[in-house]
Amino acid sequence: MSSDRLIYLPLGGAGEIGMNAYVYGYGPAGRERYILVDIGVTFPDMDTTPGVDLILPDVGWLAERADRLDAIVITHAHEDHIGALGRVWQRLRAPVYARSFTGHLARMKMEEAGLDPTNVRTVGAWPETFDAGPFTLSFLPVSHSIPESAGLVIDTPAGRVIHSGDFKIDVTPVVGEPFDEALWSDAAAPGVRALMCDSTNVFSHHPGRSEATLGDDIRDLVAGCGGLVAATTFASNVARLKTLAEAGRAAGRSIVLLGRAMNRMVQAAVDTGVLTDFPGVVTPEEAQSIPRENLMLLVTGSQGERRAAAAQLSRGKYLGLELKPGDLFLFSSKTIPGNERSVTRIVNNLSEMGVDVVDDGDQRYHVSGHANRPDLARMHQLIDPDMVIPMHGEHRHLRAHAALAEEMQRAAIIAPNGSMVDLSGDAPRIVEHIETGRIYLDGAVQIGALDGVVRDRIRMALNGHVLVTVILDEDDEAIGEPWCEVMGLAETTRSNAPLADVLEADLDQFLGRADAKTRRNDDKLDEALRRVVRQTAQNEIGKKPEVTVVISRIS
Amino acid sequence: MSSDRLIYLPLGGAGEIGMNAYVYGYGPAGRERYILVDIGVTFPDMDTTPGVDLILPDVGWLAERADRLDAIVITHAHEDHIGALGRVWQRLRAPVYARSFTGHLARMKMEEAGLDPTNVRTVGAWPETFDAGPFTLSFLPVSHSIPESAGLVIDTPAGRVIHSGDFKIDVTPVVGEPFDEALWSDAAAPGVRALMCDSTNVFSHHPGRSEATLGDDIRDLVAGCGGLVAATTFASNVARLKTLAEAGRAAGRSIVLLGRAMNRMVQAAVDTGVLTDFPGVVTPEEAQSIPRENLMLLVTGSQGERRAAAAQLSRGKYLGLELKPGDLFLFSSKTIPGNERSVTRIVNNLSEMGVDVVDDGDQRYHVSGHANRPDLARMHQLIDPDMVIPMHGEHRHLRAHAALAEEMQRAAIIAPNGSMVDLSGDAPRIVEHIETGRIYLDGAVQIGALDGVVRDRIRMALNGHVLVTVILDEDDEAIGEPWCEVMGLAETTRSNAPLADVLEADLDQFLGRADAKTRRNDDKLDEALRRVVRQTAQNEIGKKPEVTVVISRIS
Repeated sequence: MSSDRLIYLPLGGAGEIGMNAYVYGYGPAGRERYILVDIGVTFPDMDTTPGVDLILPDVGWLAERADRLDAIVITHAHEDHIGALGRVWQRLRAPVYARSFTGHLARMKMEEAGLDPTNVRTVGAWPETFDAGPFTLSFLPVSHSIPESAGLVIDTPAGRVIHSGDFKIDVTPVVGEPFDEALWSDAAAPGVRALMCDSTNVFSHHPGRSEATLGDDIRDLVAGCGGLVAATTFASNVARLKTLAEAGRAAGRSIVLLGRAMNRMVQAAVDTGVLTDFPGVVTPEEAQSIPRENLMLLVTGSQGERRAAAAQLSRGKYLGLELKPGDLFLFSSKTIPGNERSVTRIVNNLSEMGVDVVDDGDQRYHVSGHANRPDLARMHQLIDPDMVIPMHGEHRHLRAHAALAEEMQRAAIIAPNGSMVDLSGDAPRIVEHIETGRIYLDGAVQIGALDGVVRDRIRMALNGHVLVTVILDEDDEAIGEPWCEVMGLAETTRSNAPLADVLEADLDQFLGRADAKTRRNDDKLDEALRRVVRQTAQNEIGKKPEVTVVISRIS
Repeated sequence: MSSDRLIYLPLGGAGEIGMNAYVYGYGPAGRERYILVDIGVTFPDMDTTPGVDLILPDVGWLAERADRLDAIVITHAHEDHIGALGRVWQRLRAPVYARSFTGHLARMKMEEAGLDPTNVRTVGAWPETFDAGPFTLSFLPVSHSIPESAGLVIDTPAGRVIHSGDFKIDVTPVVGEPFDEALWSDAAAPGVRALMCDSTNVFSHHPGRSEATLGDDIRDLVAGCGGLVAATTFASNVARLKTLAEAGRAAGRSIVLLGRAMNRMVQAAVDTGVLTDFPGVVTPEEAQSIPRENLMLLVTGSQGERRAAAAQLSRGKYLGLELKPGDLFLFSSKTIPGNERSVTRIVNNLSEMGVDVVDDGDQRYHVSGHANRPDLARMHQLIDPDMVIPMHGEHRHLRAHAALAEEMQRAAIIAPNGSMVDLSGDAPRIVEHIETGRIYLDGAVQIGALDGVVRDRIRMALNGHVLVTVILDEDDEAIGEPWCEVMGLAETTRSNAPLADVLEADLDQFLGRADAKTRRNDDKLDEALRRVVRQTAQNEIGKKPEVTVVISRIS
């Protein structure tokens, strides 16, 4: 009897939407060989991660076992699946496998990070397979909102696992392979031990809609506009770009791509043969000599990103182009929860310019790339696995998805990040909890989410910051008076005195009566001065600021 | 011929949802007598106003003319219409008029601010009127999501104006007066010069639904739960509280009110006779001896507020009560855009506890308190005014609402905050732009939105903060080495050295070679040291921090 086991361990993506990173392992407990499926990022926000550039999964656990990691497999090129590749590869150093379009972008990530792009190996789709340690894998094409998305067939000595990747069931996806039920059935035919399944849209109760359903409405909208049309969507949604561009062409408009990601994605799709017969584009310079009613801009920034093209256009001229009354701006996109304020700011700016804004309010100009609840049920039926492990979703999504599987009489488990699940038995079983977490890319360095750096930033933002400088002589007597600098606090108190003056007077008074023991001891003095500042500020402005004390001793 | 004119001037609410404050004036240009309709607040967020407690409209323009202000009129007791009363009354000092329930809460606001509550005068509804300078006013009852909401009939020498207030068209509102079409027709019968009209729901295309439509679904949901039920909604939505409480009573549950606002609103509604036969409530202490399947909690915090009851319950025990698997948590509310992350955090916490969460996803447990697009059109027709002035909404709402009025062949104008509109002519006309803005209540003091205080907080949150202390002797020579304290920045650089050490070394080196002129001049030296810190930090960690330099000179 073998004591080998098959395990599944999410390091990211199970407990959030974003930052996908799933480990599979096979072998004797504690000595398994591993593969990592996807290595994505998630995006910071001002509420919890001000100043942070990107959020990466903490792959520390896997890095310690990198000698047993046989492959990194990327299902598709969305940032929440590929974005951390260049940032963590150095710690993992395993070959990277992807399909052509995804591999193309993966190589760019590696190059940008100064890593050797030949570590990325392009692999064909099912029935082509590749081996990685005890695993034999195959990319199973699936429809999603980016070209060449794939699920994975993962054959292990303990049986077959299917990893859905992000997917929807779309038989007319405009660009790329339609969802091929026969293909997925074939893959499932030998029997499937476990289905790891996308959970993001489990709360959407209606069946998903095809990308192709948008063409007519978008064409009518674009044709009906007498001015310039600008449209935004995720740059990676190449099918949508094609639909939009074709609507423009049909209305006699020249297409302009605005924004780095937009140009890069279209180029990648053309270079890898994914995108054919995309209407010819003109440059922003060329556009300036074309009448505005003959122009259509495809722009980045559907989520309200401050520096993307949409936001720039909403603030005025961008690359010589400017929106005017009578123009139309289309959000062919959904606002991701949390981005509402940024998107709304753009809409209101455009409204002030007299531009008509159309969004997805009546669901005519956007469809989701994920499987809704009925489509998830259909996938469960199609694959007919022994067990369903919901992945990619917040806890509420995982929980609802597990409940759906159980309603359909299948074993399921809620396995949030760090849950090591043994898939070898009759039912999934959590055998260990691994410490996982988040790493912040902050400027050029990576910092741990629990390092306290970001906590300090949030505290300064909420409470302001007071700096106290005190200089003492060798007898611990103050030289001059304490000095305060105040940042992020009201300058004047409720009695209309300058706050810094009031603080300095109270600090001076305190120093005058402080006992020798306190004056002699830096820690004690620091603590006491800090307390004076916080108490005085509380009295004077009703806030307790962060305080930094610098005590200089001159001998 | 009189040169008197009738003007309208929004100081808040026209350009945002929240912070309503509308001035009407009548008299010779520049010497009008005024009334102020509503004086609300809006709420801060981490993105733009970290650490701020409340946002108030800047009433500076009106305060300078307070001797000509004859009345402050409050249409209803929502915070975005009444919340700033106690904070700005001192600067305006005019009598406050409101209906009974609203007046009750207005007096509490005054008392909390240490102001005389007898400045608030309770007035009956239409046909009762009251005079304020050249204006004769009457409260016109209207359905909304708080008791005793009212529109205003404002009679002026230039004709009648109707100010809708926040409203919906609901003939079965559960608590309070049904929308009475005959009443509004009566008020409009003599002819109406201008309708100032709520715009918040102009993008909702279906007719609004009545509060009464929720009863059955809520009753079924509560009856179907085998554990404890907790439900949250805005505390001021007394009708909803009643519907929820009655569903609880029907299922044999005792009602517990959790959260200060919840208790306060129910009390105010009972005290003013607005709310009758509300099911008896038990205290949290009493609840602990009642089986959980016989309990229903009505809790504050539907918007995810960190310190409200919903968030507290999602983090663990609150006042001795704790949620468990099998319990149900109902959001009988809509998440206001911008609050999604906070609400989602609670939902995921509850999910981890095994609590079933039901929200308004399928629109069975909440209805809006505002008039949707078809209801706005109906109101326009009912009042049949010469002109429509959209109010209460972001720019995009005002614009769409003006377009709706124009589609129906009525004069309309987009008048954002600060637009003084002359209503005396055939069509509305903007005659002046007044400087308006926002005041932040920050702890115990008020600060201007443009004072730079909050900007500094945001900068510290994004960039971190470095403090540099340098002590110079009378010859401008450094005593000891420069000292750095770092807050909100990575402690170690990309080469793994302590950041503070690297900064100090570079500062020391700089000081060693700085010329006498720089060392002698505080401003020059400050600037130079700041530049060194920013450059070094950029090289070492890829960020340019905020820098505060303290130069001490010892003689």
